[in-house]
Amino acid sequence: MPFRLLSIPAAALVFFAVAAVEAQTDSAPYTNAQRETADRLIDRALEDDTAWDILESLTTEVGPRLAGSEAEARARDWAARKMKALDFKNVRIETFELPYWSRTRESAEIVAPFAQPLAVAALGGSVATPEGGVEGEIARFETLQDLIDAPMEGLEGKIVFVDEIMTRTQDGSGYGAAVAKRSGAAREAGRRGAAAALIRSVGTDSHRLPHTGMMRYAEGMTPVPAAALSNPDADQLARALRLADGPVRVRLDIGVETRERAISGNVIGEIPGRTDEIIVIGGHLDSWDLGTGAVDDGAGVAVTMAAAKLIDDLTGKPKRTIRVVLWGAEEVGLVGARAYAEAHESELDRHVLASESDFGAGRVWRFQSRFGEAALPKAAAIARVLRRLGVGPGDNNAFGGPDVGPLRAAGVPVFTLAQDGWDYFDLHHTADDTLDKVEPEALKQNVAAWAATVYLASEMEGGFRDHATEGSAAGASR
Amino acid sequence: MPFRLLSIPAAALVFFAVAAVEAQTDSAPYTNAQRETADRLIDRALEDDTAWDILESLTTEVGPRLAGSEAEARARDWAARKMKALDFKNVRIETFELPYWSRTRESAEIVAPFAQPLAVAALGGSVATPEGGVEGEIARFETLQDLIDAPMEGLEGKIVFVDEIMTRTQDGSGYGAAVAKRSGAAREAGRRGAAAALIRSVGTDSHRLPHTGMMRYAEGMTPVPAAALSNPDADQLARALRLADGPVRVRLDIGVETRERAISGNVIGEIPGRTDEIIVIGGHLDSWDLGTGAVDDGAGVAVTMAAAKLIDDLTGKPKRTIRVVLWGAEEVGLVGARAYAEAHESELDRHVLASESDFGAGRVWRFQSRFGEAALPKAAAIARVLRRLGVGPGDNNAFGGPDVGPLRAAGVPVFTLAQDGWDYFDLHHTADDTLDKVEPEALKQNVAAWAATVYLASEMEGGFRDHATEGSAAGASR
Repeated sequence: MPFRLLSIPAAALVFFAVAAVEAQTDSAPYTNAQRETADRLIDRALEDDTAWDILESLTTEVGPRLAGSEAEARARDWAARKMKALDFKNVRIETFELPYWSRTRESAEIVAPFAQPLAVAALGGSVATPEGGVEGEIARFETLQDLIDAPMEGLEGKIVFVDEIMTRTQDGSGYGAAVAKRSGAAREAGRRGAAAALIRSVGTDSHRLPHTGMMRYAEGMTPVPAAALSNPDADQLARALRLADGPVRVRLDIGVETRERAISGNVIGEIPGRTDEIIVIGGHLDSWDLGTGAVDDGAGVAVTMAAAKLIDDLTGKPKRTIRVVLWGAEEVGLVGARAYAEAHESELDRHVLASESDFGAGRVWRFQSRFGEAALPKAAAIARVLRRLGVGPGDNNAFGGPDVGPLRAAGVPVFTLAQDGWDYFDLHHTADDTLDKVEPEALKQNVAAWAATVYLASEMEGGFRDHATEGSAAGASR
Repeated sequence: MPFRLLSIPAAALVFFAVAAVEAQTDSAPYTNAQRETADRLIDRALEDDTAWDILESLTTEVGPRLAGSEAEARARDWAARKMKALDFKNVRIETFELPYWSRTRESAEIVAPFAQPLAVAALGGSVATPEGGVEGEIARFETLQDLIDAPMEGLEGKIVFVDEIMTRTQDGSGYGAAVAKRSGAAREAGRRGAAAALIRSVGTDSHRLPHTGMMRYAEGMTPVPAAALSNPDADQLARALRLADGPVRVRLDIGVETRERAISGNVIGEIPGRTDEIIVIGGHLDSWDLGTGAVDDGAGVAVTMAAAKLIDDLTGKPKRTIRVVLWGAEEVGLVGARAYAEAHESELDRHVLASESDFGAGRVWRFQSRFGEAALPKAAAIARVLRRLGVGPGDNNAFGGPDVGPLRAAGVPVFTLAQDGWDYFDLHHTADDTLDKVEPEALKQNVAAWAATVYLASEMEGGFRDHATEGSAAGASR
């Protein structure tokens, strides 16, 4: 039924491919010896504490590491030292410049009629309020769309409150919709002459720990201060509006420090290969300032470093170079990702594959590729090796991770070892992003999946691109 | 086997009594009509939103209500208004004086070798640090006992850190052991010339929301500042000590406001009875400043008010007066409890029974009495009525609640409707003690248990004391 086959989605093709590979094992994209090595990597990874030790060291000895800060510089020194200690080669720091923003103070309170404090965090990039804060009547909108649809008059001097609730999902798909308000609330508030914008945190927990994250003003607009209430505080403000006879007035006080130029950098180390082809893996080294960045993204740093180290220890020189890139300044707009793509433009055609681990420390449940069609049997073969870890095959629409975006855009194939993100947005960008939230066994399962995947990808004959599909799979999912 | 019976604990006696009552239903301590009324109260309570509405109103319209503060005064006004609106009689506020303490600033950070902030809350009653804080080397003790056992020399100028972990239990029994460090750490630190005392929060959660609570210095000692780290921050400090090559230095900055005299008060309202006998129930109105006091103890306020209201609505004038006391200044040392016992000393012999709901908003799972032996069949009979709510019979060693302590000491029988406290110390005395943590259905189950219990106790023939056991059951459990 070829006329039907044409409309079968990529995910189904993977299943077909798996079946095909299983029927013809002698045409598997790896040798029996390679398959055995991958299994040994998995065995070893499941008993290996290296990732935990790296994560503990980073989150304890460095702690929070805001992009462009002195702490992020300490993190780079830590990373270079750690890579050398783990016998990575060609360890170097590639610095770049970026504008700097940090919070210096933040508080909010209901002034009337029900005087009480509210837990609040300034959003990254927000302007300060005047010393002592701004005070205004609250205008609540159930969703960002309701604010967008609101008339241009009537909000002058008020504090806009966008109360939109985020959906909890396994795959993080609730984030895209919820995060729009982070910039959108201040933009729409500013256009209407409001005094400030408050949002319900982009997060799924119910603790009084607000979620920060980057926001950006529109070109040419008058910037208004923007902050996030914790979910319980957003509940409280909504209740106050419901129970009050008249208007509810809130005071918001935000202080920030900004500099036009600060230094960040990517830290790079390699397991050198036998050819000049490169596989890029890694996590981002910077974190938000509120927590110690254990799940965002210390876990990604630790898992990918530990996986590369394990391959180095167990397999000898790989065919392709495994390059671990610990990205700087991800949180403030993927600055390190762009800097890397620029600095390495001339060798991008030798980047055969790339992926970033940046979705917490939950177990991997799915392998997704973004390969050329001719390479799909390779994706199916990798997925088969990962089955024993509880990892199922996924579609061919992998996101690959935020920092490999410029590589993906340049045609580099990517993969995603999709993690269970059910509780990721309980912690994401909050003070609660700390080591105690990481399950050591889940971290080991991640290392096992990464080590097996990267090892096999490093040894497989031929690449993962093909000209038929290159650059055509638009709209990558995470 | 009477020689054996003498050694059987009170709990077993209750079971015997239950069996006895079940065998002789015509001698039950209530009439069939009363039993039916109790069942109707339960039916109604399970569909009644009154407790939720009260709790929502208190936590939203007043919010945090620290003892002696302007907010606690607003809470008293709220309570008196609410009682009148619910048709309580003899509504009045009985004020008393107390010393006042509040926090004005608090912060902590690891200074070296791993510079980073720590989440900290001053303990109630702590002295301030000098402006800018105190800095010192950390001396960690695994338990308070280890500190007590430490030599008197060697801690001068250091910051003592008592890292003792609290046990999670259903019945709150982990609290007694864990709370000793709240005063003990600063006392032992002060005796040894330390600069300050830090404790791991008295709490069972893993969020960066430290638990406050009252501490007291010993008579004549030099007071040192005392604060609690959140559990993840205590983990972090312990890890820093393990990973550092040398000493770990911390800076602690605490500001406080104190006044010798402030005003607090108990708010009282009644469902007047046909006799001059009184049953006292209630919860405490004050809360710590960090949260909105939903589980500690807005829930107790709401449940007991709603139960009394339901009895009033459904049964007509009770035999005994049901007096709801909303206690002031519980958190800072049971000041309202002592003030009540003093002001009502002359009528304490007419107090036939007392209980406070002050262990959160979890479901009731056990009925405990502290009755004279002759009244044990009444306890068994009440427990039997509560069975359909999932409430089992308990021992005869009820605590009764903190604010009825002086009544209990004066010989007033008490009961405890023991709540499931599995997650109570996740929230207790933290910013996270907010309305979203309360399960509406559990609140209704509480009201049902209280309404049935108090109604039956109000109508039963004869009291709950007897001379054989009065004042003899020392060491009440909670």
